[in-house]
Amino acid sequence: MNRPDDELRAWAYLARVAEPPCTAVAALVTELGATAAADAIRDRLVPNGFEEALTATEARAGADCAAQDLEAAARVGARLVLPDDEEWPGWQLLALARAGTGPREGEPLALWVRGPHRLDEVAAQSVAVVGARAASSYGESVAARLSGELSDRGWSVTSGGAFGIDGAAHRAVLLAGGRTTAVLACGIDRTYPTAHARLLTEVAERGLLVSEYPPGTTAAKHRFITRNRLVAALSEAIVVVEAGKRSGAANTAAWARRLGRPVGAFPGPVTSATSVGCHRLIADELAQLVFNTDTVVSMVRPDGGGDPGRGSERDTDTLSEEQHRVHDAIPGRGLVTVDEIAYAAGLGVPAVRSALASMEIAGLVCGDGGGWRLALR
Amino acid sequence: MNRPDDELRAWAYLARVAEPPCTAVAALVTELGATAAADAIRDRLVPNGFEEALTATEARAGADCAAQDLEAAARVGARLVLPDDEEWPGWQLLALARAGTGPREGEPLALWVRGPHRLDEVAAQSVAVVGARAASSYGESVAARLSGELSDRGWSVTSGGAFGIDGAAHRAVLLAGGRTTAVLACGIDRTYPTAHARLLTEVAERGLLVSEYPPGTTAAKHRFITRNRLVAALSEAIVVVEAGKRSGAANTAAWARRLGRPVGAFPGPVTSATSVGCHRLIADELAQLVFNTDTVVSMVRPDGGGDPGRGSERDTDTLSEEQHRVHDAIPGRGLVTVDEIAYAAGLGVPAVRSALASMEIAGLVCGDGGGWRLALR
Repeated sequence: MNRPDDELRAWAYLARVAEPPCTAVAALVTELGATAAADAIRDRLVPNGFEEALTATEARAGADCAAQDLEAAARVGARLVLPDDEEWPGWQLLALARAGTGPREGEPLALWVRGPHRLDEVAAQSVAVVGARAASSYGESVAARLSGELSDRGWSVTSGGAFGIDGAAHRAVLLAGGRTTAVLACGIDRTYPTAHARLLTEVAERGLLVSEYPPGTTAAKHRFITRNRLVAALSEAIVVVEAGKRSGAANTAAWARRLGRPVGAFPGPVTSATSVGCHRLIADELAQLVFNTDTVVSMVRPDGGGDPGRGSERDTDTLSEEQHRVHDAIPGRGLVTVDEIAYAAGLGVPAVRSALASMEIAGLVCGDGGGWRLALR
Repeated sequence: MNRPDDELRAWAYLARVAEPPCTAVAALVTELGATAAADAIRDRLVPNGFEEALTATEARAGADCAAQDLEAAARVGARLVLPDDEEWPGWQLLALARAGTGPREGEPLALWVRGPHRLDEVAAQSVAVVGARAASSYGESVAARLSGELSDRGWSVTSGGAFGIDGAAHRAVLLAGGRTTAVLACGIDRTYPTAHARLLTEVAERGLLVSEYPPGTTAAKHRFITRNRLVAALSEAIVVVEAGKRSGAANTAAWARRLGRPVGAFPGPVTSATSVGCHRLIADELAQLVFNTDTVVSMVRPDGGGDPGRGSERDTDTLSEEQHRVHDAIPGRGLVTVDEIAYAAGLGVPAVRSALASMEIAGLVCGDGGGWRLALR
């Protein structure tokens, strides 16, 4: 968007003047617009009822680093994405606006973005793959396989750029030639952790780096928690690959639930400390158990919408009339007997048996001694 | 129970005269009593409406092996347990009577039992631990640990005597000096699989062997499926430790659900073929994820009843009035924020924080960045 320099500088000033996200500053911007809001904070003079914006900006109002921030961003090829920009992921962030009520919640005011893709488009086709920093080799290989396969199927993969699961996810997508997004808890011009400098630079070149923190900001514990809400918001669903007893991934999962995003968790050996968090999430019904890429995609698109760009594949298109009736007579969950199917389909038992046999070969239904169910697509 | 020999022989005759379970024969016994029912079948003369009992017994009515069956049972120290015996597990089998409508379902007519315990008492405190015959070493070690710990905590463990998970479960209980029950798909005097002869003999000596098949009956595929319903019925809950894509354990699980018994499944590496069935059961919400003995016991006794003989342990008895209010303000599922707890408890935020801090140390609640929840007992 072609934007006057002073307006852009006003946004950059606002993005730094309070620790983001800051609902008080956001409210002032909504009231006055960015340029007037920046002036009001600088001049310490706000409309009645907006005094909180002054409290929140007390420490930083005097130091205007907007120009330097924009320069620092430009040096690394980053841009400041604003709510009226085309690539602003407004739809995804709407859930945050609804869910976030605390002073450190809610929508970001603006986002620093680095990379060759449109943030809104990437976010609309993204699955977050997150997990323990101290991951096991099992966890890293599960994360890599999932992320590579999601990428091959047209999804982009969002994570936090950390060691362990995050790194394995980013790396696998880059290897697959796909798009991956790292949401940072530091400035867009920093690479944290340092040992991931090369990885994150590559993500910036071929995927996206995203941060709500101004350039130069260092990673800090509270910023990881705050950042996690953006990982959840900028994805259609999140998958926890490994998580210990106390885990940042569980926090991201809590955010995802709050935002109404599906949450999946991969199981692992019950003897592994890095799977405890995942098992707890599943046992407490805070996450669905997923165990391969198909189950993840089914979770993201429970209506069978399939992978991005591929559209829906209707395996049932080739079914005969009788097979269709049998298929429709099997509920989405649970097992049913041949007799129950026959009753629901209004067909004789031999016809049902014959239809089930062909459909089992076609991989549409599964049977065991206890009954029949639809096969997971 | 002191029972006339001819009545016992009538029951033994009825137990063999049709492939069990046979609803038609059971109905005739209910109508006439065992002795008259046996005579009627022998004489091929039944009351109107009971003709099915003749069809079902056509092949075997003429061969009366009752005396031999009772002798064969006596030789291995087995007894025939009947519905009016004190140890008949009538309460447990009631679920079968309600659920079973097919010709091979429903309650057993009688049970051949071998071992030094009362079947009803064992069944009332039993958890079934079942799973793949081709188990991995991971699965066998999980089964052994769970079974040993359940045994230590006063539970008896029921399984099917098979290779793999079943064997690991039985063995661990014997090692722990506890009670284990093997429900057989063959006669009570046979040991199937042969390589488990020593194990099953030990189960008979220190636990229980149970079968609805007359002495000498060989194991057959349909009998495993039929037997599975008894494994489920004679336990308070069932736990699947490992299961492949097509698994008898999934069949036992289906039976357990049908009987209203809780079903748990242990996760494992998603890369392991022997965990596929467990993951599928959990993902399809046909089983709860369990990952240690505590989660299994919580599943069996969701009211916090705890282990058999121990009674209920109320960790909350020592709480202060304020802590009680905070505890009661946290729902059984999901995370809540301090603010939400404060609102529900009618307490100030500082009081809630202080109560939560003490209760977290006491292991009653857990907190992460996303909120608070009750700790699993």
